[in-house]
Amino acid sequence: MNFLEKLLETSEKNNSLVCIGLDYDPLKVPEIYGSDIFAFNKAVIDASIDLAACYKPNAAFYEALGDNGVQALRKTIKYIDGRAPVILDAKRGDIGNTSRMYAKSAFEDFNADAITVSPYMGIDSLDPFFEYEDKGVFILCLTSNKGSMDFQKLYCDGVPLYLNVAGKVDEWQKKFPASLGLVVGATNEELAEIRDATSLPFLIPGIGAQGGDLEGAVKGACSNDGFCIINSSRGILYPSDEGDHAENVRKNTLELRDSINQFI
Amino acid sequence: MNFLEKLLETSEKNNSLVCIGLDYDPLKVPEIYGSDIFAFNKAVIDASIDLAACYKPNAAFYEALGDNGVQALRKTIKYIDGRAPVILDAKRGDIGNTSRMYAKSAFEDFNADAITVSPYMGIDSLDPFFEYEDKGVFILCLTSNKGSMDFQKLYCDGVPLYLNVAGKVDEWQKKFPASLGLVVGATNEELAEIRDATSLPFLIPGIGAQGGDLEGAVKGACSNDGFCIINSSRGILYPSDEGDHAENVRKNTLELRDSINQFI
Repeated sequence: MNFLEKLLETSEKNNSLVCIGLDYDPLKVPEIYGSDIFAFNKAVIDASIDLAACYKPNAAFYEALGDNGVQALRKTIKYIDGRAPVILDAKRGDIGNTSRMYAKSAFEDFNADAITVSPYMGIDSLDPFFEYEDKGVFILCLTSNKGSMDFQKLYCDGVPLYLNVAGKVDEWQKKFPASLGLVVGATNEELAEIRDATSLPFLIPGIGAQGGDLEGAVKGACSNDGFCIINSSRGILYPSDEGDHAENVRKNTLELRDSINQFI
Repeated sequence: MNFLEKLLETSEKNNSLVCIGLDYDPLKVPEIYGSDIFAFNKAVIDASIDLAACYKPNAAFYEALGDNGVQALRKTIKYIDGRAPVILDAKRGDIGNTSRMYAKSAFEDFNADAITVSPYMGIDSLDPFFEYEDKGVFILCLTSNKGSMDFQKLYCDGVPLYLNVAGKVDEWQKKFPASLGLVVGATNEELAEIRDATSLPFLIPGIGAQGGDLEGAVKGACSNDGFCIINSSRGILYPSDEGDHAENVRKNTLELRDSINQFI
């Protein structure tokens, strides 16, 4: 089963488009977990494994904690053990020889099912990832931060750079065995515009349980047989509610799942 | 002393524009080092510390080796111990909250003097790196791989995307305390074109001791008071010559240094 089949299967089984962003932040973790990174992640996973489509740990949060952090990341992926796909959010990309090392690290050492990458260096910086036939690769297309104005939204050859990226990834999907997708965090209009341009799966970051724009995002990105997963990190991991942390994680995941589902 | 001052000081002291790419590759390392990553790096450093302007380990090569690799990278930077600046080649970049974690990892955990980053996500994905006043940040501008055609060379607002990047980085240097520079691996004409557009320091990858285009590159990039460092990895680390490995590393570094210097 390739990555996309695995993702669709989990999504269908759990009736969920929720991607849980496993961004461990020592400043926000409830006291009951002490400084045990894996214990926190395990509690989140146990509370959500039947409600999530996939998990997305961001490498930066673990690298910032040194060897302990990186070892806890490895242990976390091992603990999920194929029950849901794991997307390593790493935004990697370098010349071919070097990207091969990053691919080896993500797919063979950490055993992630998919990775996020940056398109800036073009095809030969990405094809080492694309050669893994059972893995997934989400390429940055349009991000929701202010800095997306600097380059992503420049008009290049008549269309915004992000549409150039979407077009190229569409071409690449025809040539390479890995399951490709796009990272698209955007306004509803832009989501719909990119959805018109491609049927690739979208990974949508940055929508919390409270997102007022959820309806527009879901309708823009997940319509027309387009598949999308919607990430929430802080909104699920660090509930502001009082009471049992794991129960609140479960409640927040369930709420986001059902909020999304009502718009499909 | 900030990063650029430190780099200029080392460069002047060693009369060198050579950046040594510490890309540990277990398939190429001479047998005498066994699988001792640090021992290999130490031998390379000992053989070249008075001939190099700086060192540039690429994170991917160490990450691909798991915890052992990452620990050896940390030990290597500690061993250099400020005798020459260390640029962690990591091509990072993510939303601000996450880039802050990458910056913390590179600058506080690994204690690198500078890092390479990808511009695709724009200013707020980079400013967490730019806030470190004694550190350096080299932003990908134009790379020498085939894939640079895909996006970097698209015409955006009338000029190639890479010139948009150079222009933005020039603006950012006026606003932020870190020392900024550009990664430029390019033909001689493009190097000269980017040099005309900015006086930022260049990090030029991918020119080995054997590079026939060295003269053009040096004249294009390092002229008009523009400062540049020229990286060599495999050409220095894995000499094809028979005989003592460390001696050959020293000989190759010296040759590259003197080849560059004759064109300044």
